[in-house]
Amino acid sequence: MKPGLFLTVEGTEGVGKSTNINFVEQWLTQKGISVFRTREPGGTPLAEALRELLLAPRTELVDPTAELLMVFAARAQHFNQVIKPALARGQWVLCDRFTDATYAYQGAGRGLDVSLIQLLEQVVQGGCRPDCTLLLDIDVEVGLERARSRGELDRFETEAVQFFERVRQCYRERAAVEASRFAIVDASQNLERVQADIAAVLGELLAR
Amino acid sequence: MKPGLFLTVEGTEGVGKSTNINFVEQWLTQKGISVFRTREPGGTPLAEALRELLLAPRTELVDPTAELLMVFAARAQHFNQVIKPALARGQWVLCDRFTDATYAYQGAGRGLDVSLIQLLEQVVQGGCRPDCTLLLDIDVEVGLERARSRGELDRFETEAVQFFERVRQCYRERAAVEASRFAIVDASQNLERVQADIAAVLGELLAR
Repeated sequence: MKPGLFLTVEGTEGVGKSTNINFVEQWLTQKGISVFRTREPGGTPLAEALRELLLAPRTELVDPTAELLMVFAARAQHFNQVIKPALARGQWVLCDRFTDATYAYQGAGRGLDVSLIQLLEQVVQGGCRPDCTLLLDIDVEVGLERARSRGELDRFETEAVQFFERVRQCYRERAAVEASRFAIVDASQNLERVQADIAAVLGELLAR
Repeated sequence: MKPGLFLTVEGTEGVGKSTNINFVEQWLTQKGISVFRTREPGGTPLAEALRELLLAPRTELVDPTAELLMVFAARAQHFNQVIKPALARGQWVLCDRFTDATYAYQGAGRGLDVSLIQLLEQVVQGGCRPDCTLLLDIDVEVGLERARSRGELDRFETEAVQFFERVRQCYRERAAVEASRFAIVDASQNLERVQADIAAVLGELLAR
């Protein structure tokens, strides 16, 4: 049995991730591919409970290392119980955020040591990395305005613009370094053009 | 300002930890020492929420690495927000379980790599270790019988006897290796003798 491909979608707040993940799922399904759609943090009951703890606004200061370890705890649960088995049975896994988000948010955003993130990535995932990562890229202020118009803000969405500038910069740098894994999509275009770009990436991926 | 001492109390299920931690707290308080009593996992609202997730019985299998990372996430929050500040303001911290429990339960119990635990200990605590650890030691089956007579079992208490035998063995080995930090108390004695032994340990600690 050929293992499935592991696709992740990344981007800062308000970049249109949900809409475009729906599009990816439909596009692949129409090509006859069995898609397992999931998200991080989350993807199992325990990991979703950790997601709630991570996103809930709090009066106590959240220690950055505690945040990082919660993210990887949720990932260990999700990766071992859900992602790995799905790939092994030949499904394509389509995941809303994965470890690139940890480098971007906890590494660049919170200023945590990158070597610690690398180590935890290795501990939790072994050698497994996404086969393809769609980075939806947009001006931070434009995205935040979109996100904030949606209603109540989670603990991350209340961060200052500078936080998201560091997150975006980190995503773009990672995409530049790992150009063969990443596809950057300009999410400031109208939806039709964004999805045409995404379809082109998926078409190439299928043709490999 | 002289920093406080960091005391931890360890032991397997049903060993009488709560009763004897009450005793330690009262004994120290009577000597005029300001004691900050706390517990792991837990000790802050976020860390207590993680404790609930860790202890709740679940239908999904809990990945051992996820469990370990949750334990250290709770510890990072507790240590940085609560324990370190309390020690710095001169209080003695009296903690129900700490990192020795992680070596015992996640290391020996679950079979996780000790070097990973050592690394996380260093990341989360830096060089800080307890000044004194009381290990309440009892035959595993005797302790389990006591614990199970108390009512509903948490996710750990439903483990097999062999799990707790490994936990106890690990505790005793750690106590042998770090003999100057640990005091082993035979918890199979009657309560009066257990507490006489504990008082002797505390008296020595005060005399240092």
